Order: sequence, then C-alpha cells, then structure tokens
Amino acid sequence: MINAPSLAATAGRKVPHLMTLADLTVPQIDRVLLHAHHQRRFSLPWLAPFLLQKQDGEFKGKGKKSKEKREQLRMPSQSLFNKSVALLFSKRSTRTRVSAETSAVLLGGRALFLGREDIQLGVNESLRDSARVIGGMCQGIFARVGEHEEIEELAAHSPVPVLNALSSLWHPTQILADLLTLHDHAHLFNPTPPSSSSKPYVDLAPLPPLTIAWLGDSTNVLHDMLVTYPRLGHHLRVATPAKEAYQCPKPIRERVESLGLSIGEEEGKGPGHIVWTEDPRVAVKGADVVVTDTWISMGQEDEKAQRLCDFAGYQVTEALCKEGGAKENWAFMHCLPRKAEEVDDEVFYGPRSLVFPENDNRKWTIMALFDLLFGKWDLYPEMLAQKSESKED
Amino acid sequence: MINAPSLAATAGRKVPHLMTLADLTVPQIDRVLLHAHHQRRFSLPWLAPFLLQKQDGEFKGKGKKSKEKREQLRMPSQSLFNKSVALLFSKRSTRTRVSAETSAVLLGGRALFLGREDIQLGVNESLRDSARVIGGMCQGIFARVGEHEEIEELAAHSPVPVLNALSSLWHPTQILADLLTLHDHAHLFNPTPPSSSSKPYVDLAPLPPLTIAWLGDSTNVLHDMLVTYPRLGHHLRVATPAKEAYQCPKPIRERVESLGLSIGEEEGKGPGHIVWTEDPRVAVKGADVVVTDTWISMGQEDEKAQRLCDFAGYQVTEALCKEGGAKENWAFMHCLPRKAEEVDDEVFYGPRSLVFPENDNRKWTIMALFDLLFGKWDLYPEMLAQKSESKED
Amino acid sequence: MINAPSLAATAGRKVPHLMTLADLTVPQIDRVLLHAHHQRRFSLPWLAPFLLQKQDGEFKGKGKKSKEKREQLRMPSQSLFNKSVALLFSKRSTRTRVSAETSAVLLGGRALFLGREDIQLGVNESLRDSARVIGGMCQGIFARVGEHEEIEELAAHSPVPVLNALSSLWHPTQILADLLTLHDHAHLFNPTPPSSSSKPYVDLAPLPPLTIAWLGDSTNVLHDMLVTYPRLGHHLRVATPAKEAYQCPKPIRERVESLGLSIGEEEGKGPGHIVWTEDPRVAVKGADVVVTDTWISMGQEDEKAQRLCDFAGYQVTEALCKEGGAKENWAFMHCLPRKAEEVDDEVFYGPRSLVFPENDNRKWTIMALFDLLFGKWDLYPEMLAQKSESKED
Repeated sequence: MINAPSLAATAGRKVPHLMTLADLTVPQIDRVLLHAHHQRRFSLPWLAPFLLQKQDGEFKGKGKKSKEKREQLRMPSQSLFNKSVALLFSKRSTRTRVSAETSAVLLGGRALFLGREDIQLGVNESLRDSARVIGGMCQGIFARVGEHEEIEELAAHSPVPVLNALSSLWHPTQILADLLTLHDHAHLFNPTPPSSSSKPYVDLAPLPPLTIAWLGDSTNVLHDMLVTYPRLGHHLRVATPAKEAYQCPKPIRERVESLGLSIGEEEGKGPGHIVWTEDPRVAVKGADVVVTDTWISMGQEDEKAQRLCDFAGYQVTEALCKEGGAKENWAFMHCLPRKAEEVDDEVFYGPRSLVFPENDNRKWTIMALFDLLFGKWDLYPEMLAQKSESKED
Repeated sequence: MINAPSLAATAGRKVPHLMTLADLTVPQIDRVLLHAHHQRRFSLPWLAPFLLQKQDGEFKGKGKKSKEKREQLRMPSQSLFNKSVALLFSKRSTRTRVSAETSAVLLGGRALFLGREDIQLGVNESLRDSARVIGGMCQGIFARVGEHEEIEELAAHSPVPVLNALSSLWHPTQILADLLTLHDHAHLFNPTPPSSSSKPYVDLAPLPPLTIAWLGDSTNVLHDMLVTYPRLGHHLRVATPAKEAYQCPKPIRERVESLGLSIGEEEGKGPGHIVWTEDPRVAVKGADVVVTDTWISMGQEDEKAQRLCDFAGYQVTEALCKEGGAKENWAFMHCLPRKAEEVDDEVFYGPRSLVFPENDNRKWTIMALFDLLFGKWDLYPEMLAQKSESKED
Repeated sequence: MINAPSLAATAGRKVPHLMTLADLTVPQIDRVLLHAHHQRRFSLPWLAPFLLQKQDGEFKGKGKKSKEKREQLRMPSQSLFNKSVALLFSKRSTRTRVSAETSAVLLGGRALFLGREDIQLGVNESLRDSARVIGGMCQGIFARVGEHEEIEELAAHSPVPVLNALSSLWHPTQILADLLTLHDHAHLFNPTPPSSSSKPYVDLAPLPPLTIAWLGDSTNVLHDMLVTYPRLGHHLRVATPAKEAYQCPKPIRERVESLGLSIGEEEGKGPGHIVWTEDPRVAVKGADVVVTDTWISMGQEDEKAQRLCDFAGYQVTEALCKEGGAKENWAFMHCLPRKAEEVDDEVFYGPRSLVFPENDNRKWTIMALFDLLFGKWDLYPEMLAQKSESKED
C-alpha cells in the first residue's frame, strides 16, 4: 500500500499543525516574521520587474546599491510546486482567501477554495472522514471553520498539516501580519536612526517595547494578541464593555496564564501583565498603537442595536485618543473589513493608519507559513530533530 | 515600508487601466489584435503537439513549410508566471470567465474567480477599500460589475491595472474578439487573393472597408462598436426600436462625438458617420456583416413580453437580410449565449455564422490584454516613455 | 481560420472520450491501472521529499535499495502544462472534484471548477453550444451531470475529450480506483508470497480471481462494476431489494450482455455470469470483498423512510458477513461519503476497511486518465494508428 498518509507514517514523522501563536515559541515567531520579510523582498520585484526598468543603469552598475537591486530579482521559494492546499472555509472571506490563493501561486502551487456551498463540513460527511479524505489528496489544509473544536478535530485526523485561518477562538495569521507591519514602521516608534551597520533588506528593524491598546470585543484577533505581544515585551491594554459576554473566555484566560502571563485591572506591572478595563480612555493611555475590529461580525447583524449601545464611546477617534492620553504619534491598525462605527474616516484614511500595509502583510505572512508548514514541514525544526534522535535509539 | 503599491509609486509609474476601446488609439488596437494573433499561433500547437505528430516528416524537413511548423512550437509568453489576476464578477459568466481563467494558465499564472457569493462588492466593504485590498495582493483586476461607475471607482483606487470585463456601458474585450474574427475571415470579404509576399503566420490579413450592421438594443457591445469600427474605416449601421429606452445613452453619444464621429439617419456620408435607424431592413442594406445579441439579458426576464413586442421584425434571418439588401455573402456574428428570438437556427448554425470562431477569439484577445496590461504593464508604452522623459527633467 | 477545433480537424483526428469502462478493452483497463501506479510512485516522493530526508544515507548509497529510492524522485508527467480542464459539475462533489483539481496541478495544469451556480448547463444556453464554447477554450472536459444523455450530448459536440466524472448511469473513475486498491492489497487475497523476480515499484501485484459482493442499489457505481469485474475474471454477486426500482436498468443490462456477460440468480457458472439476488446473505457467500454505497443519495432525502425500510438487513456488519459465509479475511470497500445506515463503525473504521486507500486512489486513477486522455490524447492509441493508416490511403 503506497499512499501519502502511509508515506508520512513510514518516515516516522508527526504531522505539524498551527492553531494559535501560543503554539509557537518567541524565536519561532521571530523566524516566521523574518521569513515573511524575505519572501516579500524577493517576491515584489519578481512580480513586477518592469517597475524597476527605469533604474536599469543602477542595475548594471557595480555599486553597493545596484548589487542590492540585483539581489531582489531572486525567485521566491517554489516549495508548493505541483502541490495543492485545500482552503476549507465555512465563512465568506476576502483577505484571508485572496492572501492564501495568491501565496500558493507565488510558491508554485495552488490553493483550492472549498466554501460552505462546495462542501458541507460535518453535514454530509463527518469532520473526521473529511479530514482524512481531503488530507489524502492535498499537501496542506488552511481552515476557517465555526467552532474552534472543529479545526482541532480536522487536525486530529488529517495526514497533512492544518493551519488555522480563523476559528471562534484564535486568529494567528492576523497577528503575524500586524507584527510584520509594526516592524516595517519601527521608525515611527523609534526616533533614533538605525545604526549604519543594519541591512534593511536582510534584517527586520528592531521594535522598542510598545504599548498596544485594543478597543472592542474579546475576539479571536484579541486572543492571539494576548498570547503574543506580552511575550515579545510589549505592553497590552484592553478595553471591552463590562458585560460578561465581552470578557475573556475561560479557555483563553487559562492559555494566557499557562504562558506565565496575567490579566487584570492593575497598572504599572511589567509587559507580562495585560491591563483589562471597561474604559476605552484608560486603555489608550500611553498607547503607541491603537487596534480595533468591527463589533458586528458576519452573522451578528441581529444583535446590532444592542451592540451599538454597549460599545458607545468605543469609536476610535482623534478626540478619544487625545482625551485618554495616547502618545502623540499613535498609529492605527484594523484587520478589515471596516465599518464606520468602530473608527471614523479621519483616523481610518488618515496618516496614522497602517491598515493597508497591514492588509498587504496578510499575504506575506501567510505565504511564509505556507512555505514552512505545507511546503517544507519545517515550521517546527525541533520536531524533526527529536524524531531523528529517537530514530537512532 | 515595502509593498506592491509602494513599489509602483516608487517607480513613478501611473497605473494603466482599460475601460473601453475608446481609451485606445487605432495603432494600439491594431497592436493588441496582432499580439492576440501571435499568442494564438504559438499557443495552439504548444497545447496540442500530439495533433501535429502525424506531420512529423514535415517537421524534420528542411523546406519552408516545415520551418513554419517548427516555429509554431514556441512557448507562449509566461508573463503571469507566479502571478494572480482577480476576477471580480458580480454577474454569472461563461465565456469571459473561462477565457480569462484559461488565458491566465497559458501565461503561467492564475485567475482567481470571486463571484457575487464570494465577495459582496460594495456591501460588506466599500468599493474603494476592496480595490486597495485586492489590488495589494494581485497583479491585475478583471472586473464585471453592474453600473459602470463601479469599475471606474475600482480603477481609481486600485494599485494594479483594472480591465473592464463588462460594464453597463462598455464591453471592450468582445469587440476585440470580433475584430480578430473578421481579420481571420478577410477572404470572405476580399475576393482578391493576398499577395504572395504576405506571411499568414506573421501578419493579420488586411480587411477592406466593411459595412457592419447591428440589430438590437443599445448595449455595451454596441457602444464599443460605435467608438471602434468607424475609426478603423468601417461603415456602421444600427437599428434599434424607436422607444427612447433603446436609444444611445447620452454619455456614450458624447464619447462617440469626442472621437470626431457622428450618429444620425443620414445616408451616404463617410465611415465616420454612424447610420442609426429604427428599421432593421435599412440597417442591413449593403451589409458585409450582421451582428446581434440577445434582447433579454440576465435580470431582464420580467420585461420579456414587452421586449418581444418592441423587437418584432428584428430576428436575423435569410429573408430579412435579402429583403434589406445585405451583400450576398454576408456573415453573422453574435457574442453568445444566444436565444432563438434574435436569430434563427438556419443562420446561427449555418455557413454564414462566425459565432464559434468569435467565441474562441474571446480567449486569444483576453490573453493578449492580460499579457500586455497585467503581465508587462505595456499596453500603453507611451505612458512609460512620458514617464522616463519627465524623470530626466 | 486558426483555432483549436480546426487544429484537431486538420490533423484528421477523431476526438476521444470515456463514458464508462465498457468503452475500454481489458488491456486498456490494465494499462490505465499501471499508469496510475506509476504516476503515484513518482508523485508521492516528489510531493514530500522532506519525508525521505532521514533516509539520506540510503539515498546516497550504491545498493539496489537506494537506487530504487532515487528513482522515486522522478518528476511526474507535466502533460497539462499551461493547459486547462473544465470541471462541469451540476452536483456538489468532494472526492471527485478534489482528485481532479489536485491531479491537474500535479500534471502542471489547472482544473477549472464550474458548478451549478457558475454555469446553468442547458438553461441559459443549450448543451450543444456550451460544449463547443467551453471545449474551444479548454483542453478537456470532466463532467458530472444529471441524466446520462447530457454527457453524451456534450461529447457529441465538444472539440476536446470528455471524461465522465459521474452520470445517472455510469461512474468509471470509481471502479478504476477500486481496482487499483485491490491490486495494492493483493497480499490479502493471495497468501502465496510473490516471486522474488517481481518488482513492486514497477509492476502491480497480480490479483487471483476474486469474489466481489455488492449490497445496495443498482447505481452508477454498480453498473461500472458489472461491465468490468467479470471481464477481468472476478466473480460478481449482487444483492438489491426485490422492488422493480432497484433492478438493473434495461440499457445497462443490454450493455452488459453486449460484452458477452449475463445476469441471473443461477449459481456455479463462470465469472462471466453475475449472480443477482435480493438476499444480502446470499450475495456475500464466499466473498473476498464486500462493497456498498449509501442508499440515500443527494436529492433523495425525501424517500429516506421508504428506503430504510426496503434496505432492512442490508447494513454491512461482521454478523451479516459471517452468517452469509463471506471468506474469513473479507475486505470492505465504499466510495464515500458514508452514512451509518449501510455499514457500521466496526467495519468502516476496522482493519478490513480499504475505504481510505480507495479514496486516495481516486486521485491517482483520475490523474492517469487526465494524463492519457486530456494531456496526450493517448488513451486509445489504436485510434491514432487507424488514422495514420487511413491517411496513407
């Protein structure tokens, strides 16, 4: 019997998955970000060489600059060549889907979109069977399902890696994109010019410890912020309305605490402590970055009136941030799509807004994960090392 | 900040778009047609080398013919290698969609179909934001939207080229396919054999000035005929029912006039004058080509009874064309899908019909535009030249 | 006029199609299976070289084993490079669709899924026109339509090969996958070890004559079993409920008889006679393999109660097979998706079950057909030979 699952079994390899950034160590997160940075720097000129043509002179020159230009024309990784990634999406999606489909093309392969109408996950066939069936034909599964248990069930039975594209609890790819965007804009937060020895094409600009404020719901986006930013040395400040429904769910709180972090109203502790308040003005105090998301997600339109009432005062505006005492040069982030209720036009389309670079980085970070997780099974090199050792026993 | 949009901005390039053939000069139109002809002549044998295998002898020979055969086996342009084109289609489509998707594959890349159900353009997110978001991840946008203003809005905010796949006002890719089909069948209209020096694999057969009749509605297909055929030296004769609703919309008439052309009932003027009548028999007088389209488009099914009444006598038949005095060897064109109301089976499936070659040429002309506009940003080489000059200032 | 259809016509080639395995001779079936086996043995290591890396030592060695390993790293056929296959699916599908889409990627090309919502086959445009239109743009059509006549109509008018992905009467790709799975598990049925001269990487393990039992409806899956297994020397035993609606349709019975086979209740005849009974216990007598499918297909949910009653006693269980006298080591097959009514968990997830290898082989057999039929027009090499001869006349 020769088939893909048995090939993995024969090789004695455990199938790697990624459900949340809490699954990654800090060095692993840094490695993914750097990999995304490199994928991007090779991909952009590769995709648009005609945009460089007027700099032909430089290209042919011998100087340091023209060498850098030439280096840009390297072909990106083709680790998905001849390969297919299944996108199991039970909800509509623009950014995540287009990021995934275009990333797969860039890596030489193809992403296969299977939406709610294409495949009724768990309806016509059990999740267990679907995971084994689709995993037996594809080289990776990028899943955007409803309840988080569903993607855990897929991962338990899939013979190929499963990456969480969005679940009820976690949204790891969003926070990676946000982090890359913050590094890209490190100059906003770090007035000191970088040392002359830094190589912008090779390294990410280092970030000083930032104060990051979240105004909104306790959503999957926030949850991955909770388990990530404090571990990287950033201070996280959260405002959600007082109602129980908007508080941090118990399993998330437990995961946060398992990483040695804490959540509470207390001020003045280290970055390992997340300040959680019901007052948006308190949350933005000293903020370098203010982040929000829509409060009325898809499928929640019926609760709209109640939510508008609960989130009164939560709209991100110049006035709110001034009143709360955000830093003068605070930057704004939003995972999109945006509704006007949570942020006004002045901020959203203004110079503080990083929303579109953030959007573009969805693609580069997803591409990095596709390359490492699906293309090379190399997201957790330790796994392989452990295996090899145990093999020698 | 390194991202695709900023790369374009850095290079000082204006993003090129194509909304209607009125945007192109006559030499530009000719260039696209010739490019489509060449894409086709390389692609067909490339896609089906096994169909040439019985002519192996010729292939290996030294004669002129076998050299031509060998030349056919050249790989088509791979200018979309690793690249993605977004198809934003708010209406169902077969021809345009399949042309686009197969063209992208031929060019080494991928077209990503995003239909009404996949992405609710303008509903969950503004057109402006969607254009920036999707344009930040893809290398081109091929859009089939509702109102023409929508595609103009997309083009205004997209960081990558936007090509009109069909709007309420224009349908440029259809007329390019029709023109290529007429050139392919130039022998029907030009009894003189081409000079011995012509190279059918290299050049398009030249067309004599034709008389082209349109019977039907004042639709997007007709509108692109209005701004194109007269500029190429062809006489255009149009019949639409008398009602105001079927007349040429004001913005179209203005665009036609801005190109130095005119519309009216007068006869006997040059090709720059478009004869417009309510009598289909008058329209087909002296016609080399008779063109129509369905009068009951998708979404207009409720008006069907009224329209059948308004278009009485408009069905293209042998009898109508004889009565009206079309040329004996008149040819028939239709953009498909066809309903029997506007053309009978005798004409549609008969020897006059060019509808299927016309259909096949949808692919080759769309492929040419994808290559020039999305793959190489080279549809308007003047743009680059201007840029370079202004750069040297 | 230069277009794909005319290229085929010029070359004097008849377009090859595959509607049912009854269209293939026994040697042709064997050839497709062997081709699938080879596609798979090259594809698996090609898709997952990292899974072989711990065997690096062997790879570099000089022994016979490491030579075999190196052979595995051959690139699979790229016969669909730059090519597109249209998937015309009027029903939802997981296995067939994902097999097709991932196979096309492996062969270097792309499958273009056109579902019920994308293209209303026969509604907005006649099947005849759609076949010509889509066939003029793609290099193959893989169709899953409703009534079998529909795919015959497509094949009659398509300028490119049409492969039946599932029709009301036939399901050829499923039976090819089942056959490959049986060969892969030949050791289960053949206690004698294979001779030392056999090369598992090159040849398929030979199958002894098997007794194969079908419990269920007279479906498209069964129909292709009827015209295939007996011709390969296997005994086929079928149980369907007594009602007329569950009996073999007349056109199928005629096709079976045209191959020199017979259907009836008689026992003890050769493999050319298919035993047909209403008692599932009789059907499983002496069975090496027990096969079933769901009795409640998509769109038949309303008949569910009646069907549950009609199929009482048909659930495949250990008890049923013991009572009926199946061989001790009987194996189980199911084309999926599975419902619990027709087979219990003990069998379905137990060691007898071949359902997931069977699923994986959907991909490899479809890939083999795509390669031979769409990529190379080489499924019927005789066709070409005949053509060449007639050409020399």
